[in-house]
Amino acid sequence: EEEIPEDHPRYQDLLTRHRIEKGVEKGITHLQGMHAEGRGSAFDYLLGETTIPSADDAERAAAAHLLLADHPVLSINGNVAALVPGEMVDLAEATGADLEINLFNRTPKRIEAIAAHLREHGATDVKGLEADARIPNLDHQRAKVDEDGIYTADVVLVPLEDGDRAEALNEMDKTELVIDLNPLSRSPQVADVPIVDNIIRAVPNMTEHAKELADADESELLAIIEAFDREVALEQAENRIRSGEL
Amino acid sequence: EEEIPEDHPRYQDLLTRHRIEKGVEKGITHLQGMHAEGRGSAFDYLLGETTIPSADDAERAAAAHLLLADHPVLSINGNVAALVPGEMVDLAEATGADLEINLFNRTPKRIEAIAAHLREHGATDVKGLEADARIPNLDHQRAKVDEDGIYTADVVLVPLEDGDRAEALNEMDKTELVIDLNPLSRSPQVADVPIVDNIIRAVPNMTEHAKELADADESELLAIIEAFDREVALEQAENRIRSGEL
Repeated sequence: EEEIPEDHPRYQDLLTRHRIEKGVEKGITHLQGMHAEGRGSAFDYLLGETTIPSADDAERAAAAHLLLADHPVLSINGNVAALVPGEMVDLAEATGADLEINLFNRTPKRIEAIAAHLREHGATDVKGLEADARIPNLDHQRAKVDEDGIYTADVVLVPLEDGDRAEALNEMDKTELVIDLNPLSRSPQVADVPIVDNIIRAVPNMTEHAKELADADESELLAIIEAFDREVALEQAENRIRSGEL
Repeated sequence: EEEIPEDHPRYQDLLTRHRIEKGVEKGITHLQGMHAEGRGSAFDYLLGETTIPSADDAERAAAAHLLLADHPVLSINGNVAALVPGEMVDLAEATGADLEINLFNRTPKRIEAIAAHLREHGATDVKGLEADARIPNLDHQRAKVDEDGIYTADVVLVPLEDGDRAEALNEMDKTELVIDLNPLSRSPQVADVPIVDNIIRAVPNMTEHAKELADADESELLAIIEAFDREVALEQAENRIRSGEL
């Protein structure tokens, strides 16, 4: 990672690829995660590889949701763990949220590798190893969650999430915050707060907003949430992808 | 592969991913190829996962170029070998072209694995193992080609090609045919015939055009080439990506 010069015009893209490749090598990231990341990188390219204003609004609203929540949980899959392990730990600390590992291709080995990786990046409590509850209306391994984690959470951040799972979580009446670079895919379409941004920019920015809002009272946080319009955010992201300068 | 139902709405995307994943497992495809394929799949999604009319024109013009060539060569990298091995063999047969393996991340082991894979799919003569010539103005391993292959070819098909290499080949005054799903990337931008289409649709369609044009005389082939406008093809692909129905 130190070999990539920060002033390289493709710095973010190279960094992202490098982290995902390391994730696959370490057994954290599934091979399909490399494909998903490539797909995301094309949308990021069309977005201009920048946090557009509506994404910044979404990140601020998401931070407000996490701060207001009784039981916020940040869901971690293989790509999230590879790309932003320390950044997720920071966001959890800034918002009082739990970290829970949740995988599309769940194996005990991958769960363990990700838990160890998160601990190396400063996590103390990692959920998702118990898997003693199930999300209704979802098949197989993907339904597995912790009873005292995602299952009873009121606000969940699910970055880079599969559409079926995003829908099933939504039906559980949770407030769902989604990070996804394709505004047209199902996960952001069902989210309460769709964040159309690269996760490596989005998560640190959410943490900054959370720190800035740490002393805000409930009415201020509620006002930020009220002011956020999910339809506008999705539309502006699509417009940028359709018409942005390249 | 037989497990993916052909009437699945995401059939092509699933098939492509599956083939690339198998390619990585077999040592044919580099891990970065999975990323590149994911990136391509996003552009294909925006294109509507269809061969647009200007891409069909490009495929017909490319077939005419291959038929008119004195020494046409089809370049094969790890993604091409994983995605369309038999289809490239068919195209080579229909146009009298040579097949030459050419890798961005070149190792003897991968070269051998790809040669064996192509032979399993019907190839008899596979070039790229000698590597006894160099493309000028190109670093490292990527410059390596066969003297009696790409080095002396007058027409080359380079699908899913790296921009540096596409530029260096172009400077050798070859007629360059490029398949790439991003019309804005360097390879199609420098190509004589930019084909903005998914390789799994493009190659069989080029073969069909080549078979249909097998008995055409030189003037007919030249007229097809003359009628093709690369600027229009690039523009129409970008317009479709920007404004297509999804």
